[in-house]
Amino acid sequence: MIANDTLLRALRREPVDHVPVWLMRQAGRYLPEYNAVRTKAGSFMALATSPQLATEVTLQPLARFPLDAAILFSDILTIPDAMGLGLSFAEGEGPRFARPLRDEAGVNALAVPDLAKLRYVFDAVAEIRRALAGRVPLIGFAGSPFTLAAYMIEGGGSDDGFARVRKMAYMRPDLLQRIVDVNADTVALYLRAQIDAGADVVMLFDTWGGLLPADAWRRFSLATMQKALAALPAGVPTIVFTKGGGAWLDDLAGIGASCVGLDWTVDLRRARESVGARVALQGNLDPSVLTTDAATVDREARAVVRAAGDAPGFVFNLGHGIVPQTPPAHVAVLVDSVHDESRAKKIAR
Amino acid sequence: MIANDTLLRALRREPVDHVPVWLMRQAGRYLPEYNAVRTKAGSFMALATSPQLATEVTLQPLARFPLDAAILFSDILTIPDAMGLGLSFAEGEGPRFARPLRDEAGVNALAVPDLAKLRYVFDAVAEIRRALAGRVPLIGFAGSPFTLAAYMIEGGGSDDGFARVRKMAYMRPDLLQRIVDVNADTVALYLRAQIDAGADVVMLFDTWGGLLPADAWRRFSLATMQKALAALPAGVPTIVFTKGGGAWLDDLAGIGASCVGLDWTVDLRRARESVGARVALQGNLDPSVLTTDAATVDREARAVVRAAGDAPGFVFNLGHGIVPQTPPAHVAVLVDSVHDESRAKKIAR
Repeated sequence: MIANDTLLRALRREPVDHVPVWLMRQAGRYLPEYNAVRTKAGSFMALATSPQLATEVTLQPLARFPLDAAILFSDILTIPDAMGLGLSFAEGEGPRFARPLRDEAGVNALAVPDLAKLRYVFDAVAEIRRALAGRVPLIGFAGSPFTLAAYMIEGGGSDDGFARVRKMAYMRPDLLQRIVDVNADTVALYLRAQIDAGADVVMLFDTWGGLLPADAWRRFSLATMQKALAALPAGVPTIVFTKGGGAWLDDLAGIGASCVGLDWTVDLRRARESVGARVALQGNLDPSVLTTDAATVDREARAVVRAAGDAPGFVFNLGHGIVPQTPPAHVAVLVDSVHDESRAKKIAR
Repeated sequence: MIANDTLLRALRREPVDHVPVWLMRQAGRYLPEYNAVRTKAGSFMALATSPQLATEVTLQPLARFPLDAAILFSDILTIPDAMGLGLSFAEGEGPRFARPLRDEAGVNALAVPDLAKLRYVFDAVAEIRRALAGRVPLIGFAGSPFTLAAYMIEGGGSDDGFARVRKMAYMRPDLLQRIVDVNADTVALYLRAQIDAGADVVMLFDTWGGLLPADAWRRFSLATMQKALAALPAGVPTIVFTKGGGAWLDDLAGIGASCVGLDWTVDLRRARESVGARVALQGNLDPSVLTTDAATVDREARAVVRAAGDAPGFVFNLGHGIVPQTPPAHVAVLVDSVHDESRAKKIAR
């Protein structure tokens, strides 16, 4: 039993007392208490691989703000790390793999990893679930099979829109297909294990699918997300989020997920018209709003709640992760404004 | 009279013998003869401000490939430079302004510049037109009022999605409105002067509009592009291109442009269904295809031509600029494949 199950109800498109709110990267660098733990841990991976520290930082934003969900503190690249690619995070830079997929032999050798290597993730889920003591739901997550493939092929982030990966999609679609297929199987097992450990909801982050041509996205990203979702136990709400996928919401609404996440460029009213009552929607305040001032945060948060309409099935979030420059006081304003605006309009009760 | 007016006919959605093709950045760093002139000029601005050198590099790709149009060699940031912001291009980096718009006084002081400061552009247009001797049409261009504003506020490129600009859209929409209004007036005069000097077609590059929330994009980018287009002489074909605007094609088709450009993520078949016969479409091969091999270039170029359908009103282009790693031989294959495929299917004759 979960005391505040508003998120679960919204994801099932049931009536709610208020619009539930959680924020991508709600545990992160904008919080001084997070930075203290991060410094103590010594490295991002030391933090992410410690169930005790991951639990501590996962709970930090919930101690400050009346958020309606917790989300596992981890990283989408735990999976390729477990596959042997050697993940590290250089200070002030993005992720880096010591052994990216650069030849056919490497792709052919790729296999679903022993999930025991990811036990630290499942242990963190279990420990967070215990620490939450039923207050709010816990969201688990994974990267989409394609987004993982993009990093695995590139060896890290990209400043040219993962051109190397797009090139592979044209020249060796068989190799890219093999990578995303192995990733889809792994993601399914990984999310299932998070659910078994106590995750109430799971989300797929398709961070880079929006860089693909539409047909390649459908083949390498959409279809493999659908495959991973199909392998999950029925009854667990699921969220899919393709950043830059605003033109593809109809596709995203049809792969079996409970909810489609929207980035900040999407017109929320049109999105609701487009997907109808098929799925819940999640989003989509521009994260840069949190760097403005309290009055602007309040105004813009309320505008998103109003744009979401009165039908059930809406989860408030940002359209991308919180930026480090965000003053925590603005997050407090945001959460209160969303709750107040949605209670005031007596949404879907 | 223009010997090969296929581009003009396609933009007017008239029957054509073949699909016309030109490529964004067709004069650029993938060509050794361009790099030779660029080195000789000493700096990008020295090249761009010399009508004689701009003419030379504009014509280079036409000497190699049977392209159906020339496009003025210039940069969208000539306008803010003429406004006094002090443009430079550091080697290996992007554009930089010495005096970006950083306070209210700077915004209030902004004004439509004396177009005499941009005479080098109009002189280049006239010289290119003479050198073309009626072979193919000449395309002039400008940045969209919002895209110019983004650079003017940021002071150059951005690695955080122009967060500073988005922040201004929320906190001081009045200031951003003033900037885009001045830019729209300037863009209109600038394009009109290019047309007077001999440009047969003009294009607006809305490179960063796709980073805005939909409502802010409509206000600050779409509406100001419409305003600029409305001030142009009737009968000159116009092209608008919002990168990342795949969800907004209906809006783009309704602002009076002859043609809407599509980036490589857009599903061309769906785009045609969406805009109907209101406008021509231009695009949208992924530029990374040109870094693959000749067989792949041929296959993918033909696939774009087929996806464009049989209705008149299609211009082949890339979905973004040519990347420097492109072998020129692949561009030759591309142009031939587009011409051959479209002749073979007897498109709209």
